[in-house]
Order: sequence, then structure tokens, then C-alpha cells
Amino acid sequence: MSRKSKGINAERDLIHKFWSTGLWSAVRVAGSGSMRYPSADILASNKLRRLAIECKTSREKNKYLPKEDVLQLKTFAEIFGAEPWIAIKFDRKEWLFLSLDDLEDTGNNCLVSIDIAEKKGLLLEELIEAKKYTRGQ
Amino acid sequence: MSRKSKGINAERDLIHKFWSTGLWSAVRVAGSGSMRYPSADILASNKLRRLAIECKTSREKNKYLPKEDVLQLKTFAEIFGAEPWIAIKFDRKEWLFLSLDDLEDTGNNCLVSIDIAEKKGLLLEELIEAKKYTRGQ
Repeated sequence: MSRKSKGINAERDLIHKFWSTGLWSAVRVAGSGSMRYPSADILASNKLRRLAIECKTSREKNKYLPKEDVLQLKTFAEIFGAEPWIAIKFDRKEWLFLSLDDLEDTGNNCLVSIDIAEKKGLLLEELIEAKKYTRGQ
Repeated sequence: MSRKSKGINAERDLIHKFWSTGLWSAVRVAGSGSMRYPSADILASNKLRRLAIECKTSREKNKYLPKEDVLQLKTFAEIFGAEPWIAIKFDRKEWLFLSLDDLEDTGNNCLVSIDIAEKKGLLLEELIEAKKYTRGQ
């Protein structure tokens, strides 16, 4: 399976999870193609809240996101009126949602380590209940 | 150019128009593929308002939309928390935005005639100014 297909499958998996709550809708945003506007991978909404989500998967313990991608997500979320979130799924684990403040700046990139994700990330059910607590505390 | 490509080009044209206002963001929703959830072609937002838009083009004077597609748009818009709109572009004319109430029920389909669109449709600048007047009145 190509890298692109794996990425789309991961996004679809997350979209199913939002719809299966019965309260949230979610759509996959079409690839930029010839468009050069800020964007996100997924938009999810339950009428009251809107989430602009960048989806990432990793088989390693560290995932580096180009800083440009993170800034683009932030810009898009501001204009669209949505909360920006990074959704990350490490090998065979559950999706974890990180706020942009939880990313570690390494210069050109933003780092999400599995340790940070497990410490600060929210599970989907925590995210959509808007409980801002940190798991494990 | 394939019918699908023409449809995507029409959607991109409309997305450019929203971004060029400087106040609105817009994204194209990825094709349903294996997903079987209600959807729209475009989502546009200026933070305060969100629009779920189905895009259509026509070289004829009448455009028939399957009623199922219209109901799907309506359902999606309700769950997502967006206003449902049909954007239609007749040959060499400007985009016109119709509310679902302005479509004519013909049984299995909803009809948009060029006459109805020109009488009841809003231009983009009217739509985003939220002026609910009918042009020509």
C-alpha cells in the first residue's frame, strides 16, 4: 500500500470514529492539488465545536512535522473558526490528540514523541467531551 | 476534460472566489470513496457562518438534482452545523446560490431552472453579506 493510501486510510479511520459517536460529523479535505491555501486533513463538527485536524501516523517513537505544516493548520483554523489539533497514531496504539502548544519546537520541525503524546494527548472521547485534563494526572 | 474534472474545476473556481474575499476560507470535501456518510462539495466559513455547498454546473436551462443528494446535503448541514446551499453556474454566467426551499420538487428530483436561479438565487457577494433579499425585487 502506498504511503498516500495509508495516510488516506488513517484519515478514514478517524472519520468513522467521529461519525460513530452519533453526535459528530467529519469530512476529509481534498488534497490541495492546484490550490495553495492553508488547509487541514479533516474537519469535524458537532454544531457547537469545530475541529481542524492534521492526521499523522508513525511507526517510530518520534514524529517530526514540518513547522510550515503546523503553521498552515493554525492559520486555516483561525480563518475557518475551528480548533487546531494534531491527531497522531503510533504503531498499534489509539489515536491521541495534541494541541499545538504540546508540540516541541526543534527548529525547522515540530516534534511529537510517543512519551509526550501519551502524557499530554487526549483520547477521542476526552477530546469530544472537551475535558482539558491531562491523562495520567 | 472528463465530467469529474469539470466538476472539480468548478469547485476550485468557487473556492478561489471565497478566499479572494479575504474574509472567508473554503475547502473541497474529498469524494466519499468508501465512506457512506452525508457530505457536501465545499465547506466555507468566516468564523461566524458556515456554509455547506453542493456545486452544480449546467449547459442546459434546467438542472435536475437527485432528491437523495439534496436530502444528504440537508442532513450533513444539520449535523455539521452549517447552512445548506446549492451553488449553480449556468453556461458562461455567474455562480448563483439557492436555498433548498427554492428548489422545485419534481418527484425523484429537485429542479433548478435558469429562470428560478436568476430570480431567487443570490450572487456570492449577496450570500456572504447575508442579505436575504431576492434580486430583481
